[in-house]
Formats: sequence, structure tokens, C-alpha cells
Amino acid sequence: MTTLIQGGQVVSPSGALLADVLVDGETIAAVGAPGTLSGDETIDATGKYVLPGGIDAHTHMEMPFGGTHSVDTFSTGTTAAAWGGTTTIIDFAVQAKGTSLLSTLDKWHAKADGNCAIDYGFHMIISDVNDQSLKEMEACIDGGVGSFKMFMAYPGVFYSTDGEILLAMQKARETGATIMMHAENGIAIDQLAAQAFEAGHIDPVQHGLTRPPELEGEATSRAIQLAKVTGSPLYIVHLSASQALAAVAEARNDGQNVFAETCPQYLYLSIEDLAKPDFEGAKYVASPPLREKSHQADLWRGLRTNDLSVVSTDHCPFCFKDQKEMGRGDFRAIPNGMPGVEHRMDLLHQGVVAGQLSLGRWVETCSATPARMFGLYPKKGVIAAGSDADIVIYDPSATQTLSAETHHMNVDYSAYEGLEITGRVHTVLSRGRVVVSPDGFTGSTSHGKFLSRSLNQYLN
Amino acid sequence: MTTLIQGGQVVSPSGALLADVLVDGETIAAVGAPGTLSGDETIDATGKYVLPGGIDAHTHMEMPFGGTHSVDTFSTGTTAAAWGGTTTIIDFAVQAKGTSLLSTLDKWHAKADGNCAIDYGFHMIISDVNDQSLKEMEACIDGGVGSFKMFMAYPGVFYSTDGEILLAMQKARETGATIMMHAENGIAIDQLAAQAFEAGHIDPVQHGLTRPPELEGEATSRAIQLAKVTGSPLYIVHLSASQALAAVAEARNDGQNVFAETCPQYLYLSIEDLAKPDFEGAKYVASPPLREKSHQADLWRGLRTNDLSVVSTDHCPFCFKDQKEMGRGDFRAIPNGMPGVEHRMDLLHQGVVAGQLSLGRWVETCSATPARMFGLYPKKGVIAAGSDADIVIYDPSATQTLSAETHHMNVDYSAYEGLEITGRVHTVLSRGRVVVSPDGFTGSTSHGKFLSRSLNQYLN
Amino acid sequence: MTTLIQGGQVVSPSGALLADVLVDGETIAAVGAPGTLSGDETIDATGKYVLPGGIDAHTHMEMPFGGTHSVDTFSTGTTAAAWGGTTTIIDFAVQAKGTSLLSTLDKWHAKADGNCAIDYGFHMIISDVNDQSLKEMEACIDGGVGSFKMFMAYPGVFYSTDGEILLAMQKARETGATIMMHAENGIAIDQLAAQAFEAGHIDPVQHGLTRPPELEGEATSRAIQLAKVTGSPLYIVHLSASQALAAVAEARNDGQNVFAETCPQYLYLSIEDLAKPDFEGAKYVASPPLREKSHQADLWRGLRTNDLSVVSTDHCPFCFKDQKEMGRGDFRAIPNGMPGVEHRMDLLHQGVVAGQLSLGRWVETCSATPARMFGLYPKKGVIAAGSDADIVIYDPSATQTLSAETHHMNVDYSAYEGLEITGRVHTVLSRGRVVVSPDGFTGSTSHGKFLSRSLNQYLN
Amino acid sequence: MTTLIQGGQVVSPSGALLADVLVDGETIAAVGAPGTLSGDETIDATGKYVLPGGIDAHTHMEMPFGGTHSVDTFSTGTTAAAWGGTTTIIDFAVQAKGTSLLSTLDKWHAKADGNCAIDYGFHMIISDVNDQSLKEMEACIDGGVGSFKMFMAYPGVFYSTDGEILLAMQKARETGATIMMHAENGIAIDQLAAQAFEAGHIDPVQHGLTRPPELEGEATSRAIQLAKVTGSPLYIVHLSASQALAAVAEARNDGQNVFAETCPQYLYLSIEDLAKPDFEGAKYVASPPLREKSHQADLWRGLRTNDLSVVSTDHCPFCFKDQKEMGRGDFRAIPNGMPGVEHRMDLLHQGVVAGQLSLGRWVETCSATPARMFGLYPKKGVIAAGSDADIVIYDPSATQTLSAETHHMNVDYSAYEGLEITGRVHTVLSRGRVVVSPDGFTGSTSHGKFLSRSLNQYLN
Repeated sequence: MTTLIQGGQVVSPSGALLADVLVDGETIAAVGAPGTLSGDETIDATGKYVLPGGIDAHTHMEMPFGGTHSVDTFSTGTTAAAWGGTTTIIDFAVQAKGTSLLSTLDKWHAKADGNCAIDYGFHMIISDVNDQSLKEMEACIDGGVGSFKMFMAYPGVFYSTDGEILLAMQKARETGATIMMHAENGIAIDQLAAQAFEAGHIDPVQHGLTRPPELEGEATSRAIQLAKVTGSPLYIVHLSASQALAAVAEARNDGQNVFAETCPQYLYLSIEDLAKPDFEGAKYVASPPLREKSHQADLWRGLRTNDLSVVSTDHCPFCFKDQKEMGRGDFRAIPNGMPGVEHRMDLLHQGVVAGQLSLGRWVETCSATPARMFGLYPKKGVIAAGSDADIVIYDPSATQTLSAETHHMNVDYSAYEGLEITGRVHTVLSRGRVVVSPDGFTGSTSHGKFLSRSLNQYLN
Repeated sequence: MTTLIQGGQVVSPSGALLADVLVDGETIAAVGAPGTLSGDETIDATGKYVLPGGIDAHTHMEMPFGGTHSVDTFSTGTTAAAWGGTTTIIDFAVQAKGTSLLSTLDKWHAKADGNCAIDYGFHMIISDVNDQSLKEMEACIDGGVGSFKMFMAYPGVFYSTDGEILLAMQKARETGATIMMHAENGIAIDQLAAQAFEAGHIDPVQHGLTRPPELEGEATSRAIQLAKVTGSPLYIVHLSASQALAAVAEARNDGQNVFAETCPQYLYLSIEDLAKPDFEGAKYVASPPLREKSHQADLWRGLRTNDLSVVSTDHCPFCFKDQKEMGRGDFRAIPNGMPGVEHRMDLLHQGVVAGQLSLGRWVETCSATPARMFGLYPKKGVIAAGSDADIVIYDPSATQTLSAETHHMNVDYSAYEGLEITGRVHTVLSRGRVVVSPDGFTGSTSHGKFLSRSLNQYLN
Repeated sequence: MTTLIQGGQVVSPSGALLADVLVDGETIAAVGAPGTLSGDETIDATGKYVLPGGIDAHTHMEMPFGGTHSVDTFSTGTTAAAWGGTTTIIDFAVQAKGTSLLSTLDKWHAKADGNCAIDYGFHMIISDVNDQSLKEMEACIDGGVGSFKMFMAYPGVFYSTDGEILLAMQKARETGATIMMHAENGIAIDQLAAQAFEAGHIDPVQHGLTRPPELEGEATSRAIQLAKVTGSPLYIVHLSASQALAAVAEARNDGQNVFAETCPQYLYLSIEDLAKPDFEGAKYVASPPLREKSHQADLWRGLRTNDLSVVSTDHCPFCFKDQKEMGRGDFRAIPNGMPGVEHRMDLLHQGVVAGQLSLGRWVETCSATPARMFGLYPKKGVIAAGSDADIVIYDPSATQTLSAETHHMNVDYSAYEGLEITGRVHTVLSRGRVVVSPDGFTGSTSHGKFLSRSLNQYLN
Repeated sequence: MTTLIQGGQVVSPSGALLADVLVDGETIAAVGAPGTLSGDETIDATGKYVLPGGIDAHTHMEMPFGGTHSVDTFSTGTTAAAWGGTTTIIDFAVQAKGTSLLSTLDKWHAKADGNCAIDYGFHMIISDVNDQSLKEMEACIDGGVGSFKMFMAYPGVFYSTDGEILLAMQKARETGATIMMHAENGIAIDQLAAQAFEAGHIDPVQHGLTRPPELEGEATSRAIQLAKVTGSPLYIVHLSASQALAAVAEARNDGQNVFAETCPQYLYLSIEDLAKPDFEGAKYVASPPLREKSHQADLWRGLRTNDLSVVSTDHCPFCFKDQKEMGRGDFRAIPNGMPGVEHRMDLLHQGVVAGQLSLGRWVETCSATPARMFGLYPKKGVIAAGSDADIVIYDPSATQTLSAETHHMNVDYSAYEGLEITGRVHTVLSRGRVVVSPDGFTGSTSHGKFLSRSLNQYLN
């Protein structure tokens, strides 16, 4: 059966053009000039944008952290993603110390398999660098997982030493894999945090004050130099600070294979939110922390200049009640993470409305570039013949108000409670199937399939 | 009548994908998954690339210069362009002092109309900034000419003062037009050149020695600051020096609307060519001059990092005999300019072969970006439904040797004589008509039409 | 006859140390450990600083400008300087177009000879670059005037083209002279100023608004590149903008012979003063203009890091009444210049009090460095055996209030009216003679002698 | 008894001036114009320079390292220093893990006391950061040791974590002490070195190849950011790489309290020496390693621009025989260190001869600045009334050839064997006593006294 999406403006990184899109089964059969194609059924997209489905390259569903789990399961999280126009997530499998990468991957396959509303892939978090895990990186790549995240923060948990990072980067250089880096100097930060706590400073804002932006800038520079020494591709996750952006920009100007993402929370929220009274600030605890507002303009500019190539969410929701509350009395015990997978497309479209981004750049940072960065292109990330029919019909003039009462994520608060947005998802197709329509969610959590990804398609 | 281009890899800035392209009359009707479309006729593109036709945004056909003319007419020059896979040129109408922009435009329309093998547009060179010409900029924009070139070099000929540049930039800011800048400090350069000549230094290499790269860097920085003060979009033409690139990169990192092009001669040739004995160096006299080889790596890197967005040719051919020879005895009298319109696509594909550029970046710098930079997208610059069927079928494994004996430009030498190239144009369509086939040129010099362009589509 | 200055702290760029200073006639005979020397007379300096006399390397006494003259004569101006602890000025001889450098120098010698309270030297302003004036540069150097100021501003008056600058710089390279540059893009500025006036904007603040800091940054960069091409030493006068400082810092980091001065007005005053109502702003009209306050922190930092090496005053006083008032109705007609020669040492000591500068750096920027920069060291600029006995005994704990009522400059307003200062001149010696004592001015305006200077002593 | 040094040119950072210097006992009584002073005895310095004695702020006498000791004792090392015109050394007391700072200091006092030919001070190496050692930093400062060295290299030996560095820096901020940093990423380096060894690469050149300059640049940047976060003064020891210099220059331009030294070996030697055959390269093994020659020009420029403020030697001699030879078969076992204390003044004077440094800058980097950096000024580092009579009479036109056969250091090779030098020490006074004369060493190893130092005198 074929479906024709008619009358819309197809948006690509180059901008918008009027065209009809013919979907045949799970894929796009053709993109034609208006009126040149016909289908068994039609969807009217007049006055709307037709986008490649969003790709959120950084989510943490059901992630174990500090004795609890992020509260969205693959089922609830991917459903919320679909509501928001995201048709692919790349989640993180998390190696526990003492376990193997492959058994970890099996475990995550088991969690996700048959439980996703949309397609999904995995990155692998390496917590334990040793001969076996280095060797297993190759098998992961063969298994469609060619990106490996490491941490310069969280000593004792995820932290790797510079020597371990070097080893993994050498393997990445050898195989073409990409090292994703959480770049904060966790050793120094933990010292500052312990001092603050000992001095009786226990409120959530301390989370921000003890993680100064210089220590993100430093770690970012360090990761870049280690990548230079080894020749490894490097992708900085959730970049939040001007200092880190400057380091990335310099490396990119030198032509090094260095890339970075930021997240909506760093574009819209600030340390002022972390300082909200009555422990409200805990809702905004994530790492790196929300920064002074002055960083926001730099981040928007970085998105325009492509020093920031991707917008992802770092979706890692913990409920305020019972979970965030574990940190009353010690800010260090507040689970790190914020919800966000549902609102990324809308929040960045708001950047288009505000003149911060072009229409094409919206689609590029939220879909096309993550597809190419993580080896999914042209299957995902583009409206083109042969591509998967992951399509979002987006109404640029509808309005909505973000709220925990109306969102679909499995978490008891919204970081954007009450925020009014112009633009709203109208219809979402995942591999040709309408999963969200104006009438509601029409998909199934058994629909989503694992995506075996190739390597980073941007490497020089 | 419809034609199906079958079996090729359609190349876009994002890379290559297997797809069939259906041409209906002058436009592309649809791009379909292999096997999903059919046409009245077919062209087999198996094993070949299917590219959007090349766009050369900087040519000078029949240009008056120093008492002579560049030797390619619109007829010979556009035919040579077609041979090389370029299906659009944007040439420069040249205001003479004391004349109006509109009469200039009329004159250039008269030269080109009915004499072009491919479609063409115009930029306008402003040599005489006054109330009338500033006012006429608006009419030019209405007439599809929304980009205006000014010169910081050539005092007494094309040179504008910083005050005149400021006025034109203010108008550009007001209208959305783009100021294109020849950025060399001509006042200082003419002083150095006169000194060299007076000291008895008359050979072609002096052309290079008296135009040091610092004076291109300086003028580029100056143009950027004037653009910042006025808010004008700025496009640096034929950037050749590392110093100028650094200035552009800094402005772009700051998010300013600053863009730049380079040309194949700066990527492949050097001041060593200018120093060839027996006046041979005269063949390589153009401004800015060929630089020390060390600049080349920076320029390639700039193309990769998008600090250089466009590759154009600055095609401005003068025969060695009689024309270049006017400068025997005084290097300053050598007509400035080199031939190149025919070889741009090949020379940049050679950069792909050598690992300097990705396949997607080749098409981006040579076609997609110039289309967007100069208001032709998506009519030109992309293989997409609704776009003009300007299509190049390119054979990546064929080889050729560049030579004046075989090229189609109307000039008695090649700047690349004997250079061996991997890759060659197979078939070229201009608005659906096959103009070059393996059997030769099948077009007509009455085929090309004037392109009324919109404004720069990249502005923040 | 010998005089012993006893018990004070002798301040040098390295800091302060307790020592006695023996003056024998016009020179310093010895510097000895406390108690080791004796003299015919003694001056008690206990609890006070003993400084080398201040050197103000940028003054304009009796300067013709726009049909009027700056109101301090050499007599009144040098007397005011002495009051403020300055024992040497370097004033500018101003070549009028069509006249020779040597006749200009004669004219300035005639003005100053026998009319100065302290020693003085000259720089030469070149307004008319031609074969004769270039040749005369050599004779000027022989005559003790080895620094030549040029203007990138004031077209039609002092302005030199980049070609003319190049010629003078080549001569500077050849002779070791230093080119001093007023770096503002006057061509662009005059355009902006004319537009503002035509739009009915006539108030003093327009002087600032039409001279944006980008155009000082631009001109500074341009001067640096011209200096690089020619190999000329370059000294940027009255640097006021962060952008210009950045350009200087970059050149200095590269080891180029580039130097810069700033002035107290740029450290303490801002465009808010220019915007004072009732034409009060006219008091603050000078070029470059006072900037936004945010530039001040950068300038102080530049003084600390030695990217700004010298503090001078650009003393060029015009009375508010009758002179500044010429510009009511057209800000462009306000004479450019501010009074300041009397307060430099005090205002910079205030920087020491405020923690902006170290004690040593105060003396370095105000005395030692100008001496070395302009070929007066070790005759001037240091408390050392054999040096001229130009000595200031400074009381760091006295206080004073700046005011037109109490100052000694021949001008009817103070730019710092009412400002309270900690620190005050106690006694001043010029070549061994006490010219200012706690009882008042004890010098004579026939005392000062012309200083034939050698070349810049900082050149790499 | 008084001694008059007559007829020489007294050199200070500002340059040279003819003056006589009167020494009274251990101190300088006066500096007078030629002919104005008289003494009981006279030394004729006609045609020679009179310098403040050299200060070598970085030596390692009798230092335990890898199971052996550096071979110069305080007695032999300080005697060699005196021969070379150095009258003060600051050596490093080395805390062993598990011991206290104060007992360490006692131990070093015991080694040096009564065994030095010239005056000496101590820095303290902190190897074990804990509550006690942090507390003891205060007592060290009280004891005249206000500078503390830490290592980002040598894990398991001297290495401190970033958290430990942070703690020490906080204490430095609190007390005004200076943290000296060995800035190389030793964690990554040890990984690379182990890999090289396992791959069978055992030669001395591997020492250089496994310590790439990027890892010095990285660690330098990291130390700077940690210093910024804490507000600590920072002094980078033995800076060898352009990348590290760039990081220091940027911090200094921002006005941060960051300083750096380099050493003669990085100015004159290169990795080519490390690659000498027959294990000869082992003579040149020190950390950071000798670099590619291209770094040298940057280092000389850094000395001129004051981004490098001090030249010290890192004198740490191990004999080739038996000591260096411990590393045959494993480059990692070669003791790290080179001899140099005797030749610093000569090698840097050679920079004056070659036009790399001015005369004043020679004295500034080798004597005046180390005195101010480490709290010895004006007791040391200057020829001034009241200062210690540590004076070098230097003959700028004598010549010498460096060789192990003629040097006075207790080591069996010279890193500069056969190098011809222009300039040579003539006479050396230490606190008024002639310790080296043209007839030879006339001092005593019981002459030198411990210098209790104040804090860094450069802090903003």
C-alpha cells in the first residue's frame, strides 16, 4: 500500500521546498514535484512542514544510577519521544565494572527488544577499560554499536583515567569508532563538592557551584589533545559551557575530527533554576550543570556555526518525589538527570521562531546530522527515495503549553512547566506507519526495531 | 517527454545514495528508489555519479581590462563550462566610471542574451559609488542581481574607498544584498609595485612579490570590520592567503554573515609557477597572486571546515601571445587573469581522490552552496523534485590529461598543461536537454537563459 | 653643591627600596644605602616615594587645530606638568601640508625655546609625505627627533594614505625610527559623521557614536600589517578600544616591534561623559572617543600585561567657552582634545591605590618605559648614578580633589572635576633644581632644555 | 673594608650604564657615576659587564631518583655554579611519600648547611598531599620556603591527582604561596611508554616519542584552569613545547598570575640529540624531553615577550657510566636529568650575541626576575645600594669551549661538548667575597648561607 503526503513543505538542511512524498510500505518510494505522484491514500500536509523524523542521539531509559533507575522505560520513553516528533533514539548500554561489553549489550537488547514505539540504537558506555573490553569494542562495532562513551567525571563509577581513555581512543582510531566524552574534571569537582558539603552547603545550587565551567572547558581541551595524540574521532556530549565550546571550535578550525552536541536545557535554563527555593532546584540537577545565562548566546551561536553539530536531550528522568528527594540534606545524592525526550523538536523549533536558527538548521541539528554522525544516513535523517518513511508532519502555527499534566514522559514534573511554544507535531510516521495522528498515539510499543549502525560518516 | 536516469549514485552534500531520477521536460519530476520510476527514455548511469550541475559563481567573459578583453565570449566560455560539468555561471557586469548600473546591466544582457550554452546570472561590479548607483542597487536586485562586487585593489580603475564601501554596505544591509569583496590593499600594493619596477624588477614573479599575503589578510579584516559596523553580508572572493582565511574563520566563529570562496589555482598552483623563466610566469598572473605552497594546506582545510564555502574559478582568460605579452618589460602591464571555467569540477574531484574533500563536500562547494549563496536554490544546486534538470553524470574512474590542445576554452595555454586527472564528465543535461554526451557537445549557444536570482539564503 | 634626598623609598619598575640619593648639580651622583652618603643640603623624604620624574610622551601645546589653538602654551603647559610630577614632555611638531619637516621643527623650536619649565623633546607629525619630507626624516633623527606620527584619521588634514604610510615606514625601517600611529579609519568615520549630522544628530555624544571601536581595531590591525610588511617599528598612540588592544597583544605575542600607549581619560571616563546634557559632553570630545565602560577593565589589564607599555595624556586643551562651543550645532566642529598633563601621575597612582597596578608598574608606565621607548634612557626615567636629577618626591598618603579651580593648566574646566585622589606630589626636581616644593612653584620657564633623543631602545 | 668596582657597565633589565659600584663588607654601599666614589681596594672592570649574580631557581643537588642520586653534591654543584656566574641557587627539598614536609626540610637543611659555595634557598616538592602536609605548607612559608612544586607526571612517585593539586592550590591562594608545576600528562605518557617498550622500542629516543608536546600543552592548560578555579599563583617549570607556551601566553594576556621558565637545553638541543646512536641519546634524557627544533624559535620569542619569564637549568646530573646506563634495554629506566648549572649565564649570553635577547633581558631572565619571582629582591637580583654584593664581572669578548674536560660539575659528560661560546665569567663576588677570580676558585664551601625567602613579588 502506498501513501502520498501532499502539499507540504519538505524541509532539509538546505531549507524547505514544496514537494509530495510517496511512501510505499516502510520506505519512501519517491519525492516528486507537486502533483506528479499518486498514492493509494493521501495525507494532506498543506501549510505544514514535512520533516525527517527526529533523532535523539542521547537518552537514558531505565538507566541504573545511584541505587535507583531513570523512570522512563523503553516503552514509556519511546512513546513520549514519538509524541514529540522523534522517531529514533540512541540509548546508552552501560557496562558495569567487572562485566563485559557484550553481556551488557545483550542485557540492553533484552530491555528494549519488543518494547519500543520507534526505532532505536545503542551506544556503549565503557566503565571498565581492560584487554577484554578493548577487544570487545570490535564485536560491538560489528553488532552495530560503533560509538563508545567515556567519563572524565564520576570517579569510582564511570570514570576512566587518561591512560584508559588513551587505550580506548587508540582502538577507536584503529576501528573508525567514535569516542563520546562526558568532559568534566570529576576528580577536581568531587573535591570541591566534598568541601562544600563539609562546609554545610547542601542545597541543589551547590551542584552548579561546585562544577565550574572552567572544569568543563579543561576536560574538553584534554579530551581533544588525547584525541589528537591518538588520532581518534571525538564527540563531546552535552556541551554546556562557553569555555568548552571555544576548545571545540579551535579544534574544528584546525580540521580535527571533533564534534559536539548540546541539549535544550542548556539553551533555555540556567543556574537560576538550580537555585530555586524549597529544594525545587533539584529538578534541574544534571551534569554538566545548568550555567549562567551568559553561556546561552554562545551555545545558540555555536549551533549556527556548526561548532555544535547536534541537539540531543540527555533524557534521564527521575521523579521529584522519592528520587530527587534522596538528595535533601546532601546535594551530592540528588540523582543526576532531567526529562526532555518529548520536547526537543518543539524547543528547537522555538529557536527558529525566535530567529536563533534557520528552518534548515533545525532539521539538520535534530535529525540529519545525528543520522550522519552515528551511521544511520540515508536510512534515517532525510526525506529521500529509499529512506525509511520516518516522517513528521509539523504544524508551525499551532501553539501549546508544556506541562507535566499533559506530557507523556513517565515523570512527575516538567522542567519547562508553563512554557508556551509556537509549533506542534501534527502527524508522525515510523517506517511508514502512522504512530501519532491528530487523534493521538496510534503506534505500538512492539513496532520499534533495533538499528545496526555504521560508523561516523563525517570523518576527514 | 520524460527521461529516467537510472542506476547512478545521486550525490548531495550529505553523500551519495542509489536512486533513479525522472526528468520531465526541463525539470526533475521525481527522485525514486531504484526501480520505482519509469520514463520514456532512459540514460544508464550505472557506476557513475549523478550530480547537480556545477555552478561557477565567478567568471569574467568578454571582460574589458587594460585596453583588451578576456578572450572567452559568452558563447565560447559557456560551452567550455558545459564540457566541464558546469551548468550555471554567474558573470560580472562591470560598471565603468561615469556610467549607470542599469545601463551596465543592459549592456551585459545584450552581450549574453542568446549567446550562452547554459544558464547564467550576473553580479554587478560597482566602480562608481554615488547617489545614483546606490539607488540603482535596488533596481538591480529587482532585476535578479542581488550581489555587488567592490574592490579594495586597483586604484583608479575599480577601487572604492572605505567610505564608499561603507555606503554600499549600508545599502546592502537595508536591502539584504551581499557585498562581494576583492580584498587586497591596492593602495599599498601599487606603491610596492611601482618601487619594484623603478628598481628594475620587471619579471612576472614581481606580481607576486609586491602583493604580500599580509596585505590580503589586512584588507579581508578591514572588509569584515566595515561589514560588522554596517551589518552587511560579506562574501570574500578568490581568497588565497592563510592570513585572510584566519580573519574569515574568526568572523564566522562569531556568527557574522561572512563567507568566502577560493579557486582551484590557489589549491594547486603556487608562486613557483609565477617564477617560471622566459616570461612563462605571465600565464599565472592573476590577483590575488599565487602564494607560497604552504598556504594550500590551509585552503583545503578551510574547504573542509566550511570557512571556505564555495569554489569558483575567477575565469578571466587572456592569451599568452599578444595579451599576456603586453607585460614584457613591465609586470604591471600583464593582464590579470587565468583560464579555468572548464576544469573546476575535475580539479575538485581530484581533491576527493586525494582525500582532501569528501564526495558530498565536493558537490556542496561546487554546486549546492553557490546556489544557496546566490539565491538560486532549489531551482539549481540540487537533484530534487521540482528543480531544474541541470544534471551531470560523472565517471569517477575515467582519466584525462589537461592540455591546451584538448580544452575548449578560447585561450592558447592551459595553466594545468599535462596534469593527469582521475574522473571525467560523461553526460551533461541543462534544463533537461543533453548538452554534452560521450559523443561531444550537443547543446546550442542559444539555449542558456538569464537567471533572475533572489538574495543570499544563508543569512543569520 | 650637593643635595642628599634622605630616607625615602626609591621606586623603580622592580619595586621600592629604601635608599638615599645624592644629587650633584644637575645629575645624580650616587644612590646609596641609608646613611652611607652625605650632601651639602638634605631633603627629608621619610615616608615618601622618590620617583624618577614623570615623562609625558604625548602633549600638544599651542597646537593649531581647526582655526584655533590648544590653550596651554609651552610655558603654562610645562608649568602645569611640573606641578603634577612630570619633568619631561615630548610634544608634537606639526607639519602643515606644503611645508617642510625642518622648517616645521624650527618653528616648534622657536615656540618652545626659553619657554619651558621642564625639559622637552619633539616628535614630528608628518602630514605631507613626499620625497622631500621622507628625506628630511633623516635630518630630524639627527636633530634628536626620531619618532614620526601619522594619521589614519582626519582626511584632508593630517590623513595619510596606506601608500604614504608604507613609504614612511620603509624609511623608518631603514633608519630605526619609530612610526607613531593615530589608528582610526577616518575615511569611514567621516562618512558616518556626515550621515549623523545630515540626520539631525548634532550633540557631542555623536562624536562617540560615529567612531565605533571596530574602526579603531581595524586601523590598528592595518597599521600592524603595514609595519610587518615593511619591518617598521610601530607605536600606537592613545589606544582606547578592546579591539585595538587585542590586535596589539597578538602582534606582541608574535614578537613584532609593536607598542602602544593609553591615556588616563580612557581608564577613568566613558561615553557616558560624552552624553552629558547641555553640551557638557563637549568637554570630553577627543579622538579616539571615550568608550563604553566595559573597555576600561581591558585597558587596565593591558597595562599590567605590558601590551600597553606607556601612559601619556594626549594633553590638548581647549576651553569650553568659545572653543568647545564652536561645535554647538555640529558636533564635528568641536575641537578635539582634552586637558590632562597635570594629573597623569596622580591618576595612575590612584590605580595603585585601587589595586590595578603595582607600584613598580606605575613608575614603569609613566617614566621608565617612555624614556626607553623614546631614546632618553638612562638620562631620564631612572634614579641612577649619572642620570639627570629629575626627581619627584611623592606623598602616598596625602589627598587632594581635582578641580578647575585649583589646577594649573590654562583651561576653564577639568575633566575630573571633584574627583578625590589619594597621593600627591610633594617636591619636584628638574635637573637638580627644585621646581615644585610644598610652598609652590619655584622653577622658571626658562629652565627647560630641548632633549635630543636617540632611537627606540626596545627594538628586537 | 670597601671595594670599588670601577669602569664597568652595570647591566640591569633596562640596559647597561657606566657606573662604579662600591662594596662595603657583604653589601653594596653605593652605585655612583664614574669617578664619584672611592674604596679601599679597586677591581678594574673596564670593558666588562657588571651583573647582579645569576640566580638559578631550579636545581637538584644530591637528589634521590630511581634508586640513585644526582651526582653533584651541594658542595660540587654550588662550586660549579659559582664558576659559571651563578651566586644563588634554589634547590628542591623532596618530600617522600609518608613523610612530613618539615622533616623533609630539616633533612635538606642538613645536606646543604655548611656545604655551599654560594647562597641557596629551597622550594618544597609535595609528593603526599594530606591534611598534615597542607598544614605544614604554612610552616614552610614561615621558614622561608614559599614555593611548592607538584607533578602531573611520574605516577606512583611524585604524581598528584587533580584533586590533590586543587587542595594545595587552595592553600597557596590562602597563603600567597606559588605552586610550581611539572606539567606533563604522566598518566597518558606512562601508557604510551609501556606500549613502546612492549613493542620492543627500547632506545633513548623513545623517551621523546612517548612524551608528545600535546601532552605538555594539555597538562599546562589543565594546571592553568585549576589555578583559575582556585585563584592560586602558578609557575610552570621547564616549559619546552610551543603548545604549552601558547597556553601560558593566553593566561598571561588575561592577566592571570601564571608564569613560566624554560631551560637552556630546550633552547639549544633537540630530539635529534636524543636520537644519537650507541645509547649516546641517554645523555639527553630529561623530562619534558627535548623537542623538535621548531619549538626553539617559539621559546626564544617567549623569552623576549616575557611569556617565559625565567631561565633556570633543572640541573640534575647523572653520569653516563653506571647511571644513565641503567636504562640500556629499557629507556624508561634511564635516570631523568641533565647537567647544566655551570653554563646557564654563558648560554644565554650566547643568545645576546646571536641577537635573540637584549643585554637587559639576559640579566632579567637569569637574575632579576628569579629574584622577584621567589622573594629575594632586592637582596638579590640587582646592583643597588643595600643589596647583597653578589656581583659577576663578565667579559663579553672572551671565548671558551664547553667540555666535560674543563667543566667543574661532577659528571662525566657535557651536553654541549665542543660548543664554542663568546663571553666568559671574569670575577664573581658572593656577598662581597671574591669567590672566582681569573686565577680560579677562591671561595669556600662553607661560605654559602640559607636564604629565607618571602613570597612571589609579581602577584596581581
